Amino acid sequence: VPQLPEPLERLVQELSRLPGIGPKTAQRLAFHLLRVDRARAAALATAIEDVKARIGYCERCYNIAEGPLCSICSSPRRDPSVLCVVESAFDVLAIERAAEFSGLYFVLHGVISPIDGIGPEQIHVQQLLDRVRDEGIGEVIVATDADIEGEATALYLQRALSPLGATVTRPAHGLPVGGDLEYADELTLARAMAGRRTF
Amino acid sequence: VPQLPEPLERLVQELSRLPGIGPKTAQRLAFHLLRVDRARAAALATAIEDVKARIGYCERCYNIAEGPLCSICSSPRRDPSVLCVVESAFDVLAIERAAEFSGLYFVLHGVISPIDGIGPEQIHVQQLLDRVRDEGIGEVIVATDADIEGEATALYLQRALSPLGATVTRPAHGLPVGGDLEYADELTLARAMAGRRTF
Repeated sequence: VPQLPEPLERLVQELSRLPGIGPKTAQRLAFHLLRVDRARAAALATAIEDVKARIGYCERCYNIAEGPLCSICSSPRRDPSVLCVVESAFDVLAIERAAEFSGLYFVLHGVISPIDGIGPEQIHVQQLLDRVRDEGIGEVIVATDADIEGEATALYLQRALSPLGATVTRPAHGLPVGGDLEYADELTLARAMAGRRTF
Repeated sequence: VPQLPEPLERLVQELSRLPGIGPKTAQRLAFHLLRVDRARAAALATAIEDVKARIGYCERCYNIAEGPLCSICSSPRRDPSVLCVVESAFDVLAIERAAEFSGLYFVLHGVISPIDGIGPEQIHVQQLLDRVRDEGIGEVIVATDADIEGEATALYLQRALSPLGATVTRPAHGLPVGGDLEYADELTLARAMAGRRTF
């Protein structure tokens, strides 16, 4: 087996740890970084260090934040009476991109999954309940994924939130806009038919 | 458009500059780096910096090297009478992995491509010719890619090297070992038929 110089081998190893980056891609990326000029490579290294040094989680909603509160929680233009519960900070970004929701968020950083040892405590359910009660939130949209764990978590949250008097909703599931009906999977199509509405 | 905190946005930008990493993948990688523990992220940042600080090119063959000479040029076990000319340091790695070649290398870092303004000077052809003459090299294997530029470069090198008395060869092209004949492309199959050998 040919030996790479130690620093290059180490870079390949570190890149291989990234999700979706196999050994071949890691090698290609390492050789690319070897070729680019030093300022470019330094910019990437610094960006990684800066993210770790300067980004944390919002103490109110657990979204990513530069400081104690995230940009959404600290905005005066958001409606504090509606809370959207999501699995990850990534989901916040997706919903913000859709520009339809103007309330606040609560990021679970996971879903209930007994097999993986993740229960309600691991995803801060008590903090969510406290917040809904203390802030008198009127509606909680449970926007966990439409997979088994996501649905089970949604059901759990619905049961825990209902006694607090808040309306608990879930985003609509159905055919994607602009999508061909014939290409929809059976579950999506079944949901779309069951959830049909009048014009 | 939702705003990411500045350091995270900058990391997404820097990751997007890597080859084969689109904006979505860059975002996924950036969020991953945000989640991993600080030592892990620091290890990647340091590996990038170390590669730039400690790895350069071999002054004899232009392969990657930690120091003035690469590990191949500084090995006493390599045969200095055979030289393999390749397009990139990546190709050196591939040939070393095959463990069939025990000579030395010359890395062109490119191919002749008039459209891209790359002529013989840009790929160090004069240094190659000087080396073959000065070191009395007996055989030069021109292992550039089997595409148009690689073939044109091989032909150019063959003409330039022949007057120096060295045997100029090219790796065999044909069916991949273990490959199904019916899946081979036409050019490869044509090469395999034309280059057929007796048992």
